Amino acid sequence: MRRVISHSLTRCAGAVGVASALQQLPQYRFQSQVPPGVPPQMRAPQQQGRTQAVNAPHEDGEHSGDAEREFEPPKKPTEVPKFLKINTNEKGITNVQMARAPVNSLSLEFFQELNQWMLWLGSNEETKAVIISSAIPTVFSAGLDLVEVHNPKPERIGAFWQSFQEMWLIFNSFPKPIIAAITGNSPAGGCIIAMGCDYRVMARGPKDNTNSNRLYRIGLNETKLGLVAPPWTMPAYAYLLGSRRAERMLQLGETPVADEAQKLGLIDEVATNDEQAIGVAYQQAERFLSVPQQARWMARDMMRREYLQMLASDEERNYDTEFFTQFVQSPEVQKNLGGYLDRLKSRSRK
Amino acid sequence: MRRVISHSLTRCAGAVGVASALQQLPQYRFQSQVPPGVPPQMRAPQQQGRTQAVNAPHEDGEHSGDAEREFEPPKKPTEVPKFLKINTNEKGITNVQMARAPVNSLSLEFFQELNQWMLWLGSNEETKAVIISSAIPTVFSAGLDLVEVHNPKPERIGAFWQSFQEMWLIFNSFPKPIIAAITGNSPAGGCIIAMGCDYRVMARGPKDNTNSNRLYRIGLNETKLGLVAPPWTMPAYAYLLGSRRAERMLQLGETPVADEAQKLGLIDEVATNDEQAIGVAYQQAERFLSVPQQARWMARDMMRREYLQMLASDEERNYDTEFFTQFVQSPEVQKNLGGYLDRLKSRSRK
Amino acid sequence: MRRVISHSLTRCAGAVGVASALQQLPQYRFQSQVPPGVPPQMRAPQQQGRTQAVNAPHEDGEHSGDAEREFEPPKKPTEVPKFLKINTNEKGITNVQMARAPVNSLSLEFFQELNQWMLWLGSNEETKAVIISSAIPTVFSAGLDLVEVHNPKPERIGAFWQSFQEMWLIFNSFPKPIIAAITGNSPAGGCIIAMGCDYRVMARGPKDNTNSNRLYRIGLNETKLGLVAPPWTMPAYAYLLGSRRAERMLQLGETPVADEAQKLGLIDEVATNDEQAIGVAYQQAERFLSVPQQARWMARDMMRREYLQMLASDEERNYDTEFFTQFVQSPEVQKNLGGYLDRLKSRSRK
Repeated sequence: MRRVISHSLTRCAGAVGVASALQQLPQYRFQSQVPPGVPPQMRAPQQQGRTQAVNAPHEDGEHSGDAEREFEPPKKPTEVPKFLKINTNEKGITNVQMARAPVNSLSLEFFQELNQWMLWLGSNEETKAVIISSAIPTVFSAGLDLVEVHNPKPERIGAFWQSFQEMWLIFNSFPKPIIAAITGNSPAGGCIIAMGCDYRVMARGPKDNTNSNRLYRIGLNETKLGLVAPPWTMPAYAYLLGSRRAERMLQLGETPVADEAQKLGLIDEVATNDEQAIGVAYQQAERFLSVPQQARWMARDMMRREYLQMLASDEERNYDTEFFTQFVQSPEVQKNLGGYLDRLKSRSRK
Repeated sequence: MRRVISHSLTRCAGAVGVASALQQLPQYRFQSQVPPGVPPQMRAPQQQGRTQAVNAPHEDGEHSGDAEREFEPPKKPTEVPKFLKINTNEKGITNVQMARAPVNSLSLEFFQELNQWMLWLGSNEETKAVIISSAIPTVFSAGLDLVEVHNPKPERIGAFWQSFQEMWLIFNSFPKPIIAAITGNSPAGGCIIAMGCDYRVMARGPKDNTNSNRLYRIGLNETKLGLVAPPWTMPAYAYLLGSRRAERMLQLGETPVADEAQKLGLIDEVATNDEQAIGVAYQQAERFLSVPQQARWMARDMMRREYLQMLASDEERNYDTEFFTQFVQSPEVQKNLGGYLDRLKSRSRK
Repeated sequence: MRRVISHSLTRCAGAVGVASALQQLPQYRFQSQVPPGVPPQMRAPQQQGRTQAVNAPHEDGEHSGDAEREFEPPKKPTEVPKFLKINTNEKGITNVQMARAPVNSLSLEFFQELNQWMLWLGSNEETKAVIISSAIPTVFSAGLDLVEVHNPKPERIGAFWQSFQEMWLIFNSFPKPIIAAITGNSPAGGCIIAMGCDYRVMARGPKDNTNSNRLYRIGLNETKLGLVAPPWTMPAYAYLLGSRRAERMLQLGETPVADEAQKLGLIDEVATNDEQAIGVAYQQAERFLSVPQQARWMARDMMRREYLQMLASDEERNYDTEFFTQFVQSPEVQKNLGGYLDRLKSRSRK
């Protein structure tokens, strides 16, 4: 019976997507979070193609050890976080503030720390919901750290890209509500973090804002640097904006301000200022906690499986990493990145 | 040549979706409705994978009986309907009113009766278009009958779920225009019936409405009861609302009022009151009848194949049924349902 | 390594879609346009299923001729165009004006000429971007030439349909920005040409317009003639409008005016009159040229692969052609077309 259910779940949801990639990876399983009434297989739907392979040994009663591998739940990271500030309130809402000066750029070490803590928060019973925000004024995150991609170090670039993939998988399969409080500019990788959340509230700009140039902006603007957003984020962009509008915005690297982004569907709500954005995020976290959590999680999971499928297997993640590694090292891409970094430097000298 | 066409049709439309599930089932074939100019295979596109298997025997001239099975058209139900009121006007527009007091909740017997009549109306030459509405004030349909799912009877639950699947297949493959006149609240299963139609007009609320709490609402709010909308309805919800907005509304179980639902795309038109909603439904039925019907049906069919594919085979329907059966019997789900029913009872006592 | 990259690219993008059909066809390869930094395989992602077959021979060092077929770049057409006016400005923006009196209806010879020139403009270094417009007042294109489909000539109908498919493939895989300046009505095939572009600006109507009946209209209205839009254009319509709205508009053959079309997402911008529409098109071409072109093209390509996949192989194109050929010759379709042509004639006599 168990196998039937497992297969069923995979098949049913499989028509929306196919498999929840995250749940195939032992380290991403949030086992302790799954409500007790759910049959064991529901907690970890397997990739369609693998279900049989995993289950087949049951039939002759052998090798069942493979099929029933028990995975360790994530452990609390032992080190004090370097790039994050983490606080949990009395209602179990945990605020994860990104705090990597000067602009929360996303490096290998940043992703590793964020991923480790998110896995722990996903499993830890004290935490009921997570709010992602920034400890740095006027910026949510500036996106990938260009030091990782300009003249990349061969020994880091693969691990860097895989840590980015893992962040995406963790956020999109997170078993608890996860709200983005966007209190600053959020281009490229910053926008991708926000897209992995269940709700996005964005502040309009700095409090004393009288200059429309200082209004916060959000969007996948990779093309402006000669890069392309990861293929596995494009469906999410299309899900938020509609496919053709997403395509045009990707081509041109558009980054709308909060009011426009809300109208387009890229964010859910606009706040007058940073403080209000944080306040709204706490309210929304409580709202997402007010419905039965097992049903809420299943509904979300079924809607996102299709695109998580793009990173469902080691093979796919490796292909994607190999592709990015080659692409980013092409002279054309490096020339564009170099030019951009030179412009940044000459601007900061003034 | 015939086989080429059949395969072609399947392949062409198959890229939008793959197969029209309904048409594989003999009892769902609306053969008499197919315009005379169309080659026989066009009337019943086969599932892609099956086309070859079905056609292969032709090659050696044997077993062709299997390939050319002739199916009986549906017959007029012999019994007077218990839960429906059915009237056809001089223009061939048939109004099917749901009339199962007190709130049109959807039981096994209700679905069986609705399905039987819809199959007949789809084949019957007198009927040119169908309007679905409610004979009960202030409610379109309250959704699944909770008696079927709270402490479900093992001998009924499977048949119940399959009758729900069949309703979805019949509505989405219906060969004639089908308009929903939503003259009352339409949560969960009520919303699913409306989603299976070609056009949705919804009344704002009762005529003397001065209380915004009495405005009619519509939406998939299953999560609020700890349930999840069937996976095969989720793509339709996303097609209407956009994927990410559908996801958020599913997670939170949101049920917007008519004006908001129209803005979001969940319904097509708002009417001031119930009478006006019915009037609009008749006008729209005539509008949908004003274009050549074969082309109209083909256009709709190609856009919906993708999600009908989720229930395309007996195997898929059985898996889905098995999954629901196990899921709904879990203690967590039963506890949520029991709590909800207790609240309903204590409210009705006051 | 090269093979890994090629496979990777296919796989990554393959999750968004699967393969860029156009690039599998030698004649559609815009090799000279691919920026120099890109590895050779990136220029021509292969269809997923074929990658291995094509690459496999490398392993034993034999048959590598097959795998590394070199294709001739397109040559400049030698004849002066009959149905097009083509001008390139000092910035490399080429305006292609459709000029087949009286209403730019799309015949076999029209498509052949358009396709040949577009292939050349895609490869020709002088051209940086293309604007498609009409040299005929009040009409962009009236759609397919009904002479091709009413009592079709058996020796032309297949070639005609394939030239239509090729137009779609060329536009959707065009390596340079391509902007539609819609200065007139644009039903059916006219709308399909516009949908193949990156940006659509549409004039509201004739300058002296005081009659709302003369406002320009756009949309897939094939059902009104008893036809159906090609299945391979339906996803594009859904990408622009949202799936369910696209479905309703397809069923009813709706053709909104410019302001409504812009609100729905079918076009990007409304211009007050024809001259302004042309002006906006040139501005947008420059805007699309202002971002690194390799990244811009990759972003667009990944978003459109899914539906180009529908025409990815000769087999699929042939099936589709065979289906249309049979469908259009059915008595029902011919009767609808004949009736429409009679009404046109009697109207022009008055």
